[in-house]
Amino acid sequence: MKEIRGEEARVPPSDLDRHLGDLLKNKDAADLIFQVGGQSFSAHRCVLAARSSVFKAELLGAMKESSSAAGPIKICDMEAHVFNSLLHFMYTDSVPLTLKLDVVMAGHLLVAADRYNVVRLKQICEEKLCAHIDSNMVATSLALAEQHGFPRLKEACLQFLDSPSNFKAMMASDGYEHLTSSCPSVLKELIARILPAEWSVAKEVVMKM
Amino acid sequence: MKEIRGEEARVPPSDLDRHLGDLLKNKDAADLIFQVGGQSFSAHRCVLAARSSVFKAELLGAMKESSSAAGPIKICDMEAHVFNSLLHFMYTDSVPLTLKLDVVMAGHLLVAADRYNVVRLKQICEEKLCAHIDSNMVATSLALAEQHGFPRLKEACLQFLDSPSNFKAMMASDGYEHLTSSCPSVLKELIARILPAEWSVAKEVVMKM
Repeated sequence: MKEIRGEEARVPPSDLDRHLGDLLKNKDAADLIFQVGGQSFSAHRCVLAARSSVFKAELLGAMKESSSAAGPIKICDMEAHVFNSLLHFMYTDSVPLTLKLDVVMAGHLLVAADRYNVVRLKQICEEKLCAHIDSNMVATSLALAEQHGFPRLKEACLQFLDSPSNFKAMMASDGYEHLTSSCPSVLKELIARILPAEWSVAKEVVMKM
Repeated sequence: MKEIRGEEARVPPSDLDRHLGDLLKNKDAADLIFQVGGQSFSAHRCVLAARSSVFKAELLGAMKESSSAAGPIKICDMEAHVFNSLLHFMYTDSVPLTLKLDVVMAGHLLVAADRYNVVRLKQICEEKLCAHIDSNMVATSLALAEQHGFPRLKEACLQFLDSPSNFKAMMASDGYEHLTSSCPSVLKELIARILPAEWSVAKEVVMKM
């Protein structure tokens, strides 16, 4: 007999994301409180553990005690609106409809998703940044990719900068100074990369500069 | 700037259902134990509350005390494999891949989904039963629809029985006796329905028999 998987006609699409979004909003049976950037966020231990291997280790593993119901869990080095979007994604698998996910926000979320290993959000943000590289943002994105180890984003930035005009525009952008100070080695990598083929011998020299 | 909703290329589909399915399987941070048909099932209060208004009332509302961590929650009048499938659906929005969702199982699940108001599962099961009405099962489905109040399924059964041959075959089926004993009124409704138009005056008589 034909089996079904919820694909029959007249059956509405999955409402799992909506129900969990309501759970986050209503705080029903919430058993955790986070303090991030001066704001408080209620959440559910089991949902976070299901969605993030890092939260699972922190909330259920050896560090459980430190994050028990005893008191709120403080998260540093993250803005409240970024944590809010991270939470929303963990419950609903989407970013808040009210969120303008521009490249700046995508950068913040990429770092947050990487920190808590929310894999799909990481892929979404890295994809977003790779798809919107321009001379204004490329230095910032390259520094981000280099500092946090996002090889796909780094390669996309290097490919974009493989053009004298893009390179020149990048040097005039706001992010350039930060790139030079935070990731000098990637600049050497860039120089070595744009050396003429017949000068490949000089790459080694550049990398040692 | 273009925003994204996780629909960019190279981004895998939602994994919310898989993560919650793993949560159910691994019992991480489970805070409830159910006893159904001699078997035990671990679950998470907040997930059940998010997915079922009935569980929400029982687990978070006035009845909370009776279902607190004090001890396992006993569920009567339900077979273990039906509750297992209900649980699986609440976490993943799909029935277990190992489940053969034939009309018999769809009937059991429909009653369970109705009992806990798991709306989408109810729709899936009712859709399944409406789409697989035959002379063997129609009496059983009609009794189910009449006893639990599923108007769409009831109408589909009545339409199927609006044919002398189907009606005759139904009278020879296993479910017929149960239908006559449990829902005599629906049989009267059937008779009244198949009276010739010019005998519509007799419908009232039939309904009073």
